[in-house]
Amino acid sequence: MHLWKTILAYDGTPFHGWQVQPGLSTVQGTLAEAVRRITGESVLPQGSGRTDAGVHALGQVATFSLDGSIPPANFHRALNHALPASIRVLSIEHAPDRFHARHSAVRKTYEYRIHPIGSICSPMLAPFVWACPFALDLTALEQAAADVLGTHDFSSFAAVDPDLATRNREEGDASDPGDTTGSIRTIYHTTWRERDGLLVYRVTGSGFLHHMVRNLVGTFVEVGRGRLPADSIPAILSESNRSAAGPTAPASGLFLIEVEY
Amino acid sequence: MHLWKTILAYDGTPFHGWQVQPGLSTVQGTLAEAVRRITGESVLPQGSGRTDAGVHALGQVATFSLDGSIPPANFHRALNHALPASIRVLSIEHAPDRFHARHSAVRKTYEYRIHPIGSICSPMLAPFVWACPFALDLTALEQAAADVLGTHDFSSFAAVDPDLATRNREEGDASDPGDTTGSIRTIYHTTWRERDGLLVYRVTGSGFLHHMVRNLVGTFVEVGRGRLPADSIPAILSESNRSAAGPTAPASGLFLIEVEY
Repeated sequence: MHLWKTILAYDGTPFHGWQVQPGLSTVQGTLAEAVRRITGESVLPQGSGRTDAGVHALGQVATFSLDGSIPPANFHRALNHALPASIRVLSIEHAPDRFHARHSAVRKTYEYRIHPIGSICSPMLAPFVWACPFALDLTALEQAAADVLGTHDFSSFAAVDPDLATRNREEGDASDPGDTTGSIRTIYHTTWRERDGLLVYRVTGSGFLHHMVRNLVGTFVEVGRGRLPADSIPAILSESNRSAAGPTAPASGLFLIEVEY
Repeated sequence: MHLWKTILAYDGTPFHGWQVQPGLSTVQGTLAEAVRRITGESVLPQGSGRTDAGVHALGQVATFSLDGSIPPANFHRALNHALPASIRVLSIEHAPDRFHARHSAVRKTYEYRIHPIGSICSPMLAPFVWACPFALDLTALEQAAADVLGTHDFSSFAAVDPDLATRNREEGDASDPGDTTGSIRTIYHTTWRERDGLLVYRVTGSGFLHHMVRNLVGTFVEVGRGRLPADSIPAILSESNRSAAGPTAPASGLFLIEVEY
């Protein structure tokens, strides 16, 4: 029995999220099918977390175990041959048996990309951004984003999921509902930058609740467009109530960039 | 009655080409539906040419006539609101009644984008390139491409369409089958360049036969990978026979860049 660790990039557009769902095309299911075609073995790859429909990844990490052996370079080539172009295996290697894609993760980095108003968003870029229809003040975005640095209870930014066990979650380490200690996370890096004509939010944290990055961005945008004051975030955090924060930003702008172990 | 001229960009991935087809999503049909929703008038937009399924455009030109009047700036905004993000109206203006998107065109420019082997093609780029699995010699590509400059009978590079009248053609000015004078075109510019890690073929001509750019690229690639000598093109042109040339390159790499009048 060998544990394999793979790093994946994918375009979330054609998939119904990471998690296997009956009758729907998902990243997990597509990867499992490619492994089965190559090795004959049925696996359920374990991701570092689930990504929702339409969310992209540049560095998702997934693991699975195989009975048989195969040279890593051959396996790598065969997987990228068997997978659709919308999923690429960036690397694959053996991992120690104790390694767990989700539980061993210590930091994750996401990016959220906004195409600002004032120019027409290219159709080729549209699946990979939120073409935000509001004028945004970058300084206000930066000020709001800085206020989530450090350790906080992020309940106000967590999706209210009636059925956490079965929902296709954006991030896999969602807490039990009502358990506030389970919604405490540490944010190590939180910045907005202009890059290639886009407004890019980059956030690194110990983990993220379901919809947390998209709810943060949706709230920052309320600040950036002037509907909330720039110093609103501390009060929203302290309410520990989803209704205190802004709307959920669209999935298309979100990228899972890196998982650190 | 006002004639409107619009310049469009679109991601061809989600469409079954330009031309309206019953029960299928097409660029022409989607544009017509947006116009109808805004104006209440039923139109069939006339493109500068048809693009096949999966072919993209950065500068397709289309015209249609409306009985009613609407300020161009308002119409522009309303169209981009009504259209999916995969189609953008870049400009819209009144055109003289004698203007015809297809017959008035004097030059067209296409680009074909190849992602070379040796690095993994990003899933976000894959819909907009051909991830060509062969090692290509750029010097050989350049030499072959230079040999189509000027005026030639391009029958060898035209799709063999059993039913030209109803096929969804890549380029709209296809000739009648068997009429060789109808397959003579002039190429003004034909180059391969490296750009952003891609191999990009750019070609400007008086017009293009159905599949002509993709058949040229498919043949250049045969040269670039060493399966045909670099000086093969003149003999292929002179055969006036589709079977003399190479295969048709995939649709995903092709962009209609500009139409000149």
